[in-house]
Amino acid sequence: MAGAERGRPRDPGNDAAILDAALDLLIERGAGGTSIEGVAQRAGVAKLTVYRRWRTREDLLMAALEHARDPDLQGPPSAGGSLEEVIGHVAALLSRPRFRALMARVIGASVDHPKLVTAYTERHLRPRLEALAEVARQAVADGQLPPGTDPGVLEDVLAGSIGFVLLRGEEEVTAAEVERRLRALLGYVGYEPPG
Amino acid sequence: MAGAERGRPRDPGNDAAILDAALDLLIERGAGGTSIEGVAQRAGVAKLTVYRRWRTREDLLMAALEHARDPDLQGPPSAGGSLEEVIGHVAALLSRPRFRALMARVIGASVDHPKLVTAYTERHLRPRLEALAEVARQAVADGQLPPGTDPGVLEDVLAGSIGFVLLRGEEEVTAAEVERRLRALLGYVGYEPPG
Repeated sequence: MAGAERGRPRDPGNDAAILDAALDLLIERGAGGTSIEGVAQRAGVAKLTVYRRWRTREDLLMAALEHARDPDLQGPPSAGGSLEEVIGHVAALLSRPRFRALMARVIGASVDHPKLVTAYTERHLRPRLEALAEVARQAVADGQLPPGTDPGVLEDVLAGSIGFVLLRGEEEVTAAEVERRLRALLGYVGYEPPG
Repeated sequence: MAGAERGRPRDPGNDAAILDAALDLLIERGAGGTSIEGVAQRAGVAKLTVYRRWRTREDLLMAALEHARDPDLQGPPSAGGSLEEVIGHVAALLSRPRFRALMARVIGASVDHPKLVTAYTERHLRPRLEALAEVARQAVADGQLPPGTDPGVLEDVLAGSIGFVLLRGEEEVTAAEVERRLRALLGYVGYEPPG
């Protein structure tokens, strides 16, 4: 982008504040209710500061989804970990109203802004799903999952749990309940917890 | 409701046209973009005809979701059937852009209108999920699913498949692809197709 050449060097603090504000507004109002003007106002920067960096609302929201740094919204851990750690992390994540709202807004935007879903799944979720495949391989090696289990199995378990919480509507979903669901799904696959 | 007492008897043809129009607008524009005025116009009836029957946009959309009669949007078959029939039905359903859009709009509305999700899952999906439990019980009896399989297993498989298609974003999803996903999930559970 030519923005940095046309004016002052970009302030990385501004970028982070803008992306945080965009994510907040997406969660509160949905993609249709989020404007570049609204994001600039929320971030406390000039409208032009946002436009210099992201030309369209869609570009801005895609960047916000890709770089979402709020720890409460982080997908499955990107580093290695045990299956038990993944269960704990995903149960906590999927029970958070803010995360459920984010998922609902992203999926809800898929008719008018399908690129947002792609940005979220391919740029934010994909690296984390690849880490999950590594966790599954390790669980097979450790005898916690049956030999020959497809390393993509945790992706399926995650998709099932996301479908489960998103179809709950008004009801609150507790971490304990998501964990029971995750363990039921993993039970189908033949998961044997350690110890 | 007092509507019928205050004026002419309700015309069931009007009701059906109004609910069809409400569902169409929900799919096209989302809950936030659907107004009682817009629905009346689309259905070709007076605004008051809609208001007499449904006081709020939310009431109207809940009724539209409950009574959705478009065969292209029908959830899993409500009558008995084999697991193979369910696979074929769900694969066709989940690959339809109109159904994916409906699900995206319903889930997308869950932040601002959580009652819509409840109406859809409890009134439209629930009876169909109960029929799926019957299909699972029959499959166990026929030796296609392992003894002791939880009859709710098909609900989990369905939730997983819905999560899968909704997170696809821009990509088209074919019925063959959904079917492969369904068979992979059923494979985890130990499904043995007949024949």
